[in-house]
Amino acid sequence: MQYSSKKIALIGAGNVAWHLGQALAAAGHTISYVYSRTAAHRDALAAKLAANPLAHPDLRKHEIDIAILAVPDAALAQVARALQVPANTIVVHTSGSQPLQALAEKPGVRAGVLYPLQTFSKEKPVNFGTIPILIEATEEQTLQELRALAGSLSQTVHTVTSEARKQLHLAAVFACNFTNHLLGISKDLLRQASLPDTLLQPLIQETMAKAAAYHPFSVQTGPAARGDQNVLEEHLQLLQQQPTYRQIYEVLSSSIQATARQQPEQSS
Amino acid sequence: MQYSSKKIALIGAGNVAWHLGQALAAAGHTISYVYSRTAAHRDALAAKLAANPLAHPDLRKHEIDIAILAVPDAALAQVARALQVPANTIVVHTSGSQPLQALAEKPGVRAGVLYPLQTFSKEKPVNFGTIPILIEATEEQTLQELRALAGSLSQTVHTVTSEARKQLHLAAVFACNFTNHLLGISKDLLRQASLPDTLLQPLIQETMAKAAAYHPFSVQTGPAARGDQNVLEEHLQLLQQQPTYRQIYEVLSSSIQATARQQPEQSS
Repeated sequence: MQYSSKKIALIGAGNVAWHLGQALAAAGHTISYVYSRTAAHRDALAAKLAANPLAHPDLRKHEIDIAILAVPDAALAQVARALQVPANTIVVHTSGSQPLQALAEKPGVRAGVLYPLQTFSKEKPVNFGTIPILIEATEEQTLQELRALAGSLSQTVHTVTSEARKQLHLAAVFACNFTNHLLGISKDLLRQASLPDTLLQPLIQETMAKAAAYHPFSVQTGPAARGDQNVLEEHLQLLQQQPTYRQIYEVLSSSIQATARQQPEQSS
Repeated sequence: MQYSSKKIALIGAGNVAWHLGQALAAAGHTISYVYSRTAAHRDALAAKLAANPLAHPDLRKHEIDIAILAVPDAALAQVARALQVPANTIVVHTSGSQPLQALAEKPGVRAGVLYPLQTFSKEKPVNFGTIPILIEATEEQTLQELRALAGSLSQTVHTVTSEARKQLHLAAVFACNFTNHLLGISKDLLRQASLPDTLLQPLIQETMAKAAAYHPFSVQTGPAARGDQNVLEEHLQLLQQQPTYRQIYEVLSSSIQATARQQPEQSS
């Protein structure tokens, strides 16, 4: 893959910055500076990347190609305002939900987005090569440079609008954040019955394999899909002391039933 | 593995009977008879297993060791009443939600349960060897025979009470039926934005790998876990025209937030 090595400033030292910084370094780029409001995180990541820790997000006197803002969505506007860079520096954020506009209003910068579509925890290594990276920029030249940068990290790079990226982020919340929570509830229910929580692993794996191979709605199984009212009532009875789980059960079961009415083909 | 080959009657010809029958035959047992109220299904499965199709669930004049009722939960009581077997035949059902008692009241039979914890669709082959099988019986001798039979199919055989099995089935609904539905919704949301639905696969795989390696509650990510109210409101806004998805979003997000309040450790 052809790309030029970039000098990068990482603004943020959380989970995304932690993994993205290492992937960029591994791809041959130079992480020159790391800034974070949390000094301990900043210093740990700077040490890991052999970068200079910055006390303030002021890069006006430093030579960099790209500043990457990998900060929580809620902090993005404030950090973007505080950040100072040399004229014509590319400044990107890494958020799934925030628009390009969040940076485009900053004077004198070439604004962009570089969103790695993955869930990151510091303790767990990830293979960046398989992570889709979604990019966007205000101008074509910036977009080309971001495409090259993203392409040096991953085989899957897509240019998408802020609007589509927001919808994708919403879809990811359903597919990942919400499914993870349901897996947590199922583990909790197993624990209540003193059952080993490995017991459901083959079923979970098969469910995921099937959902990837077919449209999930067309292979929906279970009491709600079958319209098995007795079992639904027994399950609600079992959840009587756990009103939140019970509410989740009710809402998802009626959604499954509404979907089943639109889908003639069902497995069971 | 040591076990004796059994002569088996399969009552039911749906997805469970379809896969269980083939796994039993592959393990060296003889499927002598197949009965189903749906003649076409019965004949197809009987042909597949080189078994005799039965016009009525009356096995009194036939030599069998075990009758396996693999029928929908809602039909179990009725089919169990109609079934007639020689005295002291083992009769089991394959349901996650139905108690042993559903068969134990039948006079002259040795009642049991043989529940393969997996989701079955006719079109998709499964490897029975990795499927946990949960067994239960009214008497020790029957339990031993079921343990041998289940052990001839799978490496994972557990004896559990009807109560624990019902709770396990409930946990499976959360971990599999509900997660599958959420994956369907996410696919629908991607389609609405004309995004390729393979885009989320790496994220889904990573979520599942993480949820298997850690307690899902401890690695929960996303706007609800972070308490990112702006993103939550934007997502609800995006779902304004889809009230069912919106309700699911609200209920799961508040459950994640309630859980997060009990869990000091969070990834993001």
